[in-house]
Amino acid sequence: MLEITSTQNPKIKRLVDLRDRAERDKSDLFLIEGYRELLRAVDAAWKMETLFICEELFLGSNEGALLKKATEQGAGLIQCSKKVFEKISYRDRPDGLIAIAPQRHLDFGSLKRLSKNSSPFYVIAEAIEKPGNLGTILRSSDAVGVDGLIVCDRCTDIYNPNVVRASVGTLFTVPTLEARGRETLDWLKEQNIAIVAATPHAKTSFTEVDLTRGIAIAMGTEQLGLSDLWMKEAAIQVSIPMRGVADSLNVAMATTLLLYETLRQREAKRQHG
Amino acid sequence: MLEITSTQNPKIKRLVDLRDRAERDKSDLFLIEGYRELLRAVDAAWKMETLFICEELFLGSNEGALLKKATEQGAGLIQCSKKVFEKISYRDRPDGLIAIAPQRHLDFGSLKRLSKNSSPFYVIAEAIEKPGNLGTILRSSDAVGVDGLIVCDRCTDIYNPNVVRASVGTLFTVPTLEARGRETLDWLKEQNIAIVAATPHAKTSFTEVDLTRGIAIAMGTEQLGLSDLWMKEAAIQVSIPMRGVADSLNVAMATTLLLYETLRQREAKRQHG
Repeated sequence: MLEITSTQNPKIKRLVDLRDRAERDKSDLFLIEGYRELLRAVDAAWKMETLFICEELFLGSNEGALLKKATEQGAGLIQCSKKVFEKISYRDRPDGLIAIAPQRHLDFGSLKRLSKNSSPFYVIAEAIEKPGNLGTILRSSDAVGVDGLIVCDRCTDIYNPNVVRASVGTLFTVPTLEARGRETLDWLKEQNIAIVAATPHAKTSFTEVDLTRGIAIAMGTEQLGLSDLWMKEAAIQVSIPMRGVADSLNVAMATTLLLYETLRQREAKRQHG
Repeated sequence: MLEITSTQNPKIKRLVDLRDRAERDKSDLFLIEGYRELLRAVDAAWKMETLFICEELFLGSNEGALLKKATEQGAGLIQCSKKVFEKISYRDRPDGLIAIAPQRHLDFGSLKRLSKNSSPFYVIAEAIEKPGNLGTILRSSDAVGVDGLIVCDRCTDIYNPNVVRASVGTLFTVPTLEARGRETLDWLKEQNIAIVAATPHAKTSFTEVDLTRGIAIAMGTEQLGLSDLWMKEAAIQVSIPMRGVADSLNVAMATTLLLYETLRQREAKRQHG
């Protein structure tokens, strides 16, 4: 196995460059760091190009099985010295595992084919800025089993290392696509999917509307909320009750509440007719 | 007004020292930074000892009104040069406002007196480590109007600057106390308040139990969940459905879901009998 001991090695430089969005966009590659994240990637058969490892930094005893699976799926292995690995790691406590992997780009057709629900259930994240919020939205989307997350008019790309990390690898299982707002709206209309918009101005609480039909829950930026493009097309506008001094929740918390309320209503309908 | 231009000034050193928990514990003081946080503090009549300002860094036009209120409530004002303020600020983009304020320590008696509900509704945060999570729990607690947050066997003190920040100042309005687990359990029992524990092992979903009676929702550490002390005393054990590949949500998200489900049930009962 190739071993890299110099931080000047071009393979190392190429890896570090992928922290930049421009480099990710150009190369169509991204980084996956950490045991848990990589395990979810191989379990989802997400092919990796190269896996950089530093055995000295491994934290557990199951790394061997992970490496075996990854190489069976086609990943090349590169051993790094501790010094090199600490340079390429994005974390405070590196665990000796970072991969370069190809991005995947779903289209609306494949999103529809992957859907498991007769009344589909999508999440729209419009122009979310903070990678942590996008990662948390992915995590909640995984937890409730949405049919897809559509990132519209992106500010932060879903392959940002902090999104991958905050998603705890759920990025590899939630069907996710990036698209323009206008084309997303057209597609949703064609599919007869109602847009549910959360806005502090709505009079109806999110627990008082029917979320069991085909819906797309649309969430906007941390600062400004949803754009007019989405607000105008929203068949259902809901607010989240705020009983205290603060006037809004973080966008990831608000999304999580709407997702679980949808799940609750659908479960209740399934059980009680 | 006193103006400080040297980062070696003892008043500056004293302020910076309050970033450390040992110093906060010893002095019984803490830091409040930022316009929004300080506004919530003065609105809640939380007396400040000293307010350090740098007009050059002000971002808005309402700082004057805030300073007026704070000084009327007894705060001393100290002007700092930009260089000094950038040293004392905890933020990437300082907005020219940091206060030193006394901590408050509620006891169970005052928590009970402050309660507005005939069926009280408390949150127990046991040994939460990440300040961001504790801050988010405060934010959700404010949003649903809990009767109090009890931080048990603390890992992170509620006056940590990152808790104050993540709470967006809701720390000043949510009745909050720090206590030992054992004494909290005894008090809750005495008040006939049922403990609701969230655990992945429970078979019942959090939406399927009655949360309208007097309850305390108990949440444990990010890594290990609730300790046995709490699990043993929990009259109601619930789980949060997980339909995807991940096996748990972040503790702050889980708490937010339980809080809003409680609010939903209580509202439904109020409206429909």
